[in-house]
Amino acid sequence: MFHGAVETPILLTSTVSVPRAADALISYMLALPGNEDVLSINPLVGETNDGYLNDIRGRHITPDDVLAAVRCAKGGPVEEGAVGAGTGTVAFGWKGGIGTSSRKLPPSLGGYTVGVLVQTNFGGVLTIAGAPVGEELGRYYLRQELGEPGSGKDKSDGSCMMIIATDAPIDARNLKRLAARAWLGMARAGSSASHGSGDYAIAFSTAAPLRIRTAGQPLTRQVELLTNDAMSPLFQAVIEATEEAIYNSMFRATTMTGNGHTVEALPIDKTIEILREHRVIK
Amino acid sequence: MFHGAVETPILLTSTVSVPRAADALISYMLALPGNEDVLSINPLVGETNDGYLNDIRGRHITPDDVLAAVRCAKGGPVEEGAVGAGTGTVAFGWKGGIGTSSRKLPPSLGGYTVGVLVQTNFGGVLTIAGAPVGEELGRYYLRQELGEPGSGKDKSDGSCMMIIATDAPIDARNLKRLAARAWLGMARAGSSASHGSGDYAIAFSTAAPLRIRTAGQPLTRQVELLTNDAMSPLFQAVIEATEEAIYNSMFRATTMTGNGHTVEALPIDKTIEILREHRVIK
Amino acid sequence: MFHGAVETPILLTSTVSVPRAADALISYMLALPGNEDVLSINPLVGETNDGYLNDIRGRHITPDDVLAAVRCAKGGPVEEGAVGAGTGTVAFGWKGGIGTSSRKLPPSLGGYTVGVLVQTNFGGVLTIAGAPVGEELGRYYLRQELGEPGSGKDKSDGSCMMIIATDAPIDARNLKRLAARAWLGMARAGSSASHGSGDYAIAFSTAAPLRIRTAGQPLTRQVELLTNDAMSPLFQAVIEATEEAIYNSMFRATTMTGNGHTVEALPIDKTIEILREHRVIK
Amino acid sequence: MFHGAVETPILLTSTVSVPRAADALISYMLALPGNEDVLSINPLVGETNDGYLNDIRGRHITPDDVLAAVRCAKGGPVEEGAVGAGTGTVAFGWKGGIGTSSRKLPPSLGGYTVGVLVQTNFGGVLTIAGAPVGEELGRYYLRQELGEPGSGKDKSDGSCMMIIATDAPIDARNLKRLAARAWLGMARAGSSASHGSGDYAIAFSTAAPLRIRTAGQPLTRQVELLTNDAMSPLFQAVIEATEEAIYNSMFRATTMTGNGHTVEALPIDKTIEILREHRVIK
Repeated sequence: MFHGAVETPILLTSTVSVPRAADALISYMLALPGNEDVLSINPLVGETNDGYLNDIRGRHITPDDVLAAVRCAKGGPVEEGAVGAGTGTVAFGWKGGIGTSSRKLPPSLGGYTVGVLVQTNFGGVLTIAGAPVGEELGRYYLRQELGEPGSGKDKSDGSCMMIIATDAPIDARNLKRLAARAWLGMARAGSSASHGSGDYAIAFSTAAPLRIRTAGQPLTRQVELLTNDAMSPLFQAVIEATEEAIYNSMFRATTMTGNGHTVEALPIDKTIEILREHRVIK
Repeated sequence: MFHGAVETPILLTSTVSVPRAADALISYMLALPGNEDVLSINPLVGETNDGYLNDIRGRHITPDDVLAAVRCAKGGPVEEGAVGAGTGTVAFGWKGGIGTSSRKLPPSLGGYTVGVLVQTNFGGVLTIAGAPVGEELGRYYLRQELGEPGSGKDKSDGSCMMIIATDAPIDARNLKRLAARAWLGMARAGSSASHGSGDYAIAFSTAAPLRIRTAGQPLTRQVELLTNDAMSPLFQAVIEATEEAIYNSMFRATTMTGNGHTVEALPIDKTIEILREHRVIK
Repeated sequence: MFHGAVETPILLTSTVSVPRAADALISYMLALPGNEDVLSINPLVGETNDGYLNDIRGRHITPDDVLAAVRCAKGGPVEEGAVGAGTGTVAFGWKGGIGTSSRKLPPSLGGYTVGVLVQTNFGGVLTIAGAPVGEELGRYYLRQELGEPGSGKDKSDGSCMMIIATDAPIDARNLKRLAARAWLGMARAGSSASHGSGDYAIAFSTAAPLRIRTAGQPLTRQVELLTNDAMSPLFQAVIEATEEAIYNSMFRATTMTGNGHTVEALPIDKTIEILREHRVIK
Repeated sequence: MFHGAVETPILLTSTVSVPRAADALISYMLALPGNEDVLSINPLVGETNDGYLNDIRGRHITPDDVLAAVRCAKGGPVEEGAVGAGTGTVAFGWKGGIGTSSRKLPPSLGGYTVGVLVQTNFGGVLTIAGAPVGEELGRYYLRQELGEPGSGKDKSDGSCMMIIATDAPIDARNLKRLAARAWLGMARAGSSASHGSGDYAIAFSTAAPLRIRTAGQPLTRQVELLTNDAMSPLFQAVIEATEEAIYNSMFRATTMTGNGHTVEALPIDKTIEILREHRVIK
């Protein structure tokens, strides 16, 4: 959760590659026209431990990879599944990845949009819209079990990065509350919120008048802010969109082999069958 | 969430009766044999706004009520439903109340017990073990809707008090994390975590060696503490027991009329039918 | 520190009288014209343990005392020293009490006013504007020493309530930061921030457009907010005003006997002599 | 403030060099014998903006610099002043740097040691043991003033890193409280805690039984923990040692020119004269 200013693009990568990604991000920012006198940058890089499928110790992310990612960022549909920082992640015992979802409030509630992007890499028992998919497929998954017992292998847990963007004009206090709701979406999908799962949510508003300027600003500024009572529908939107984004990350992911391990994609046919049985799909 | 010492029994009551309950609790504590020199007591009283069914402004709780509650507290099965501070609460649009549930870890994980007691008074769309009960029964419930539109009535939201007790020897930092997991149980039951829902969880350990003494203590003490990795099963236990306690509070509650309003109990037959359809019950 | 809405006048009293004061405050609020439908009130009552001089267990504050305090509140000079909730407090081993101070920023920095009111009841070694008054007067005061050794008496620590009011238009996040600075003023006066000192600061803005309305509000509101860079002078103002308010509470306090104990006022002549020696006064 | 496990040596460097230092630290850790299977490392690197004297945008710290720093770390007297990450810092308008100080409790209070290391790079009005050195030398220093007015230069504020080590056996909750006290030492030295000063304190215990193991641990462990009441003398120790460490950082610093700017060392002769006048030195 975050309550200041977002100074850079937000990157996601594996735990021990964070510094290299952050350094490349600083290089990018320092080189932007107009930033010639900038002396301080707080790069924003989320992490997850994808060391089961990824040769994480190799730290293979290069500055060019980072620049390419930033420069190629574009609007429109978001790639999901085993892409980007989601390439090596594992969720509920199946292949996880990047997922995204959004909600748009009706005009009477402000018409605001809430978008959520998740990087799924955590354990629990998968529940899809209430259907006990993990249980029926025999996958009670706690992260710890991935390590080979007795091998002394590091069994470090994963974590779920959740990024929440909205055009609603929300101040720091309410953005923090918005971010906290992402955890509820994880809960609905079956997260066990285990000890080693360093789940992290960050929420920001794209409302232009709320942008924090760092120089030449007057003492005060006029801003339009959402009132507290108008937050509830946005909270509900974050919960729903986070839950759905997690499902999307798994439905789009494909079986992946790496680092001597294979993690299978969610078996979609069987999953749909379970969803039908439980009347999630009719 | 709490990370200090619990100095008194924990009481639950309606919002504006909290001070009277707290005062009676202080009277009780000051009068206990051995407490003749005690000069400070921090009473622990949870609150919820039950003003829809209860004449909350009347503050009808008396010191005698409090003393009776404390003196009659006993082990064994816990009364559930529309009892005590749960008498006037509303959950998901039906009658809420007091609910409780627990989990016992297998011996290999320490054999610890986690008990959860909830006072349900909040909104959302009820989901029972994944089945969309609220949706199928047409009860999309947001607290705000209870007030009569245009009447200027106070539409203050409710909140869910959640009390987590365990015999596992857990320090303050991990108790705080344990308490946070109760929110995930609420999420699974369908809470919308709306703006005005001041949900509050408190966790404490009953492990005798962890009791904080206030006088005559040596500089250090020897304690046995659960290690971080052993927390995950307890986290899972809190999530499950909170979810189940919420359901229990509703299955045990009965239709209640008060303050000129009636709130119906969850229709159990129809609910069971829905659970069957969705294969929660087979 | 606080980051929501202040719903009631703020009262200060001794620890175990808080519930009675809060209950009377609720009675007062419920009875106000226009509040006939109000169902929830969060009373704001600060506490301190004054049990050394005060028969704290007697809880002598009555509803009439509270109503009188609220109804007699007025603008103008604030009574300081051994008055109100400061009647029984002890600071740095001398008589503490209520103190107040303020700073007004120059027009170029916004011209805002910051006012601080403190209730001093804590330990440390008194330093006045840098001069080691406590040390030179042989008063190294730790709260614990007040209890009679070996008597088993409760040695509960005191605490310092600090209330910060400003007309600067500040949002919740920056109010919280403002409140945190009060602790720095305590540090300059020599507070040892001991284990049992439950120091608490609350900051609020009186800027009318920031008032939080609870009903009939539109989705958004236009507010004028102070920018982050403009906070620094206010931070400095809080630090200075808190330090000065603490000194005022002691310079105005008079020797007090109660509960079988006597606590002397700061010896002003000797103190001034020390201040002169150390060139605080020239 | 920190309440988990310290997994690496702690490094200090300038803001935008943090990622490079962190990356080198990860390289060092991954290469340590016994760490062949480690998949996750959380490097601990503190930052400060030293861009007034340092060509901060050049990010001149190399992996070899980091390795040399870690490998050459040794016990004994600590270098102070304009060394290491303190080479380019500015405090109260004079040259800041690295400073250190410690306190050892008497045997009756446990005999524990508290050591504090600071990296001073912040503003305010310097006060030394109460004497108004900054005021008398005409140096009212707010960080913002360093930027050339109208030049559009970045005026980013500095910050003070404070590292607190103790051999007292303290749990996470009390370590966090210990770290918070460092801020009080800053206050006594005259810090204005301005908006842009991202002061950060981290406290850890070197008590061997408290070390967190990551593998093969039993469910519980026996630990000896300091009791709450025994914390107060450690709090006082942190306040005093932080204040003194700040002074040491300035008394040991030398005038520095870099990046087209010169920042003078504290004029020691004049300072001592002021300390004498104010009876700090007799």
